[in-house]
Amino acid sequence: MIRFYAPDITDSKTLPETESAHCCRVLRMKDGDIIYAVDGKGGAYKCMILEAHPKHTVVEILDKTEESLHWQPGITLAVAPTKNIDRMEWLLEKATEIGVNEIFFLKCEHSERKEVKDDRLMKILVSAMKQSMKAFMPVYHGMISYKEFISRIKADFSDSSLIMGYCSPEYPKMELTKVYRPGENVVILIGPEGDFSPEEVTMAVNAGFIPSTFGNTRLRTETAALYALTAVHVINNLGEK
Amino acid sequence: MIRFYAPDITDSKTLPETESAHCCRVLRMKDGDIIYAVDGKGGAYKCMILEAHPKHTVVEILDKTEESLHWQPGITLAVAPTKNIDRMEWLLEKATEIGVNEIFFLKCEHSERKEVKDDRLMKILVSAMKQSMKAFMPVYHGMISYKEFISRIKADFSDSSLIMGYCSPEYPKMELTKVYRPGENVVILIGPEGDFSPEEVTMAVNAGFIPSTFGNTRLRTETAALYALTAVHVINNLGEK
Repeated sequence: MIRFYAPDITDSKTLPETESAHCCRVLRMKDGDIIYAVDGKGGAYKCMILEAHPKHTVVEILDKTEESLHWQPGITLAVAPTKNIDRMEWLLEKATEIGVNEIFFLKCEHSERKEVKDDRLMKILVSAMKQSMKAFMPVYHGMISYKEFISRIKADFSDSSLIMGYCSPEYPKMELTKVYRPGENVVILIGPEGDFSPEEVTMAVNAGFIPSTFGNTRLRTETAALYALTAVHVINNLGEK
Repeated sequence: MIRFYAPDITDSKTLPETESAHCCRVLRMKDGDIIYAVDGKGGAYKCMILEAHPKHTVVEILDKTEESLHWQPGITLAVAPTKNIDRMEWLLEKATEIGVNEIFFLKCEHSERKEVKDDRLMKILVSAMKQSMKAFMPVYHGMISYKEFISRIKADFSDSSLIMGYCSPEYPKMELTKVYRPGENVVILIGPEGDFSPEEVTMAVNAGFIPSTFGNTRLRTETAALYALTAVHVINNLGEK
């Protein structure tokens, strides 16, 4: 079943341009046809097409259901994107499937990649949400400076377990599985391919992040992010009675 | 640090052809230079080049260290490959990084992909092992029929926890985290994009596989495989005192 992405369908009663084109040009849907849509915030809609316009298809909402997340705690992923953007696109797809609430991309001192194409990455998220038949899409914050992200921790994530993928003799070796407890909100912080700078490590630790290892092995940036995300889900599922 | 892959270096004292070319043509290493090699079975070698030949570089082994796996139980992944082989190459790379002992590809009734290019996939494994600085490479068994794989379970995996990614009202809903116990060897069985056939499900269940869900959500073939593999590592790390 195809579900179109229409983030403001409750207000506009209209599919966005690309979705309208897909609906009317590619699938040749007509006035009176029944279609399904999701808003990316948990809302799933059964609609009837009122005007099958290839740029702004107008619908009548017949039914709305609220789909709940398949996990409880708030999970935020903050990652310095890799030089090869394919690896980040892959991460966005997998993270959407497995489940994450918010995604930040970080510009770090050792980042080789200083910018990302938000449009392209939003398309990946939309496509991953559709293909995994979910009505919820992670909130994508785009790229911000590392310093700005760290400065937001106290205000926005004061109730969260703060885990950073980092290993150095200066800090006691802590496995993620010893740090994260079921039910806790969590922020997972992953550095660039050239690792965090010493100043960045100090900033994170001062903000409350715990340098953690993931599975006692060296992982690529995107593998580390997905490993930690999966670990949080597994620990929560284990914690369920 | 570059580490060349030389699976039979202890016998042959020679790098394979592609590695010899990389060593002598690309990197322009000469007689007397020190290089490092791994055999994919845990052996890491410090060598001196005796003959910098671009097809069969001869070395003297100066030192051998045995690297141990970063996990304890035996983990086997048996997956029906996806139509899009990129997704399987990605899985092989990530599974090698995270850690798996053996990999089987399965030809199932609903498989769209009936064959794989072993040469190409072996290259992916070698490259993933090198990039993650490991001396151990998963044992890759190539593609075998589902029936043959199931018939080998009793002889080869009788001591293993047998987990299949499958969900149907016929079977009680069991989360992987409720099935797998720390320290157990495990076989993770993942079906094709079109799912297992009813006969295949029955065969697996009769062989002792427990139909299991992964994180209460629908995942793509390759995501399911990586999720389950990561879950096994996380459960083992949690189990460690």
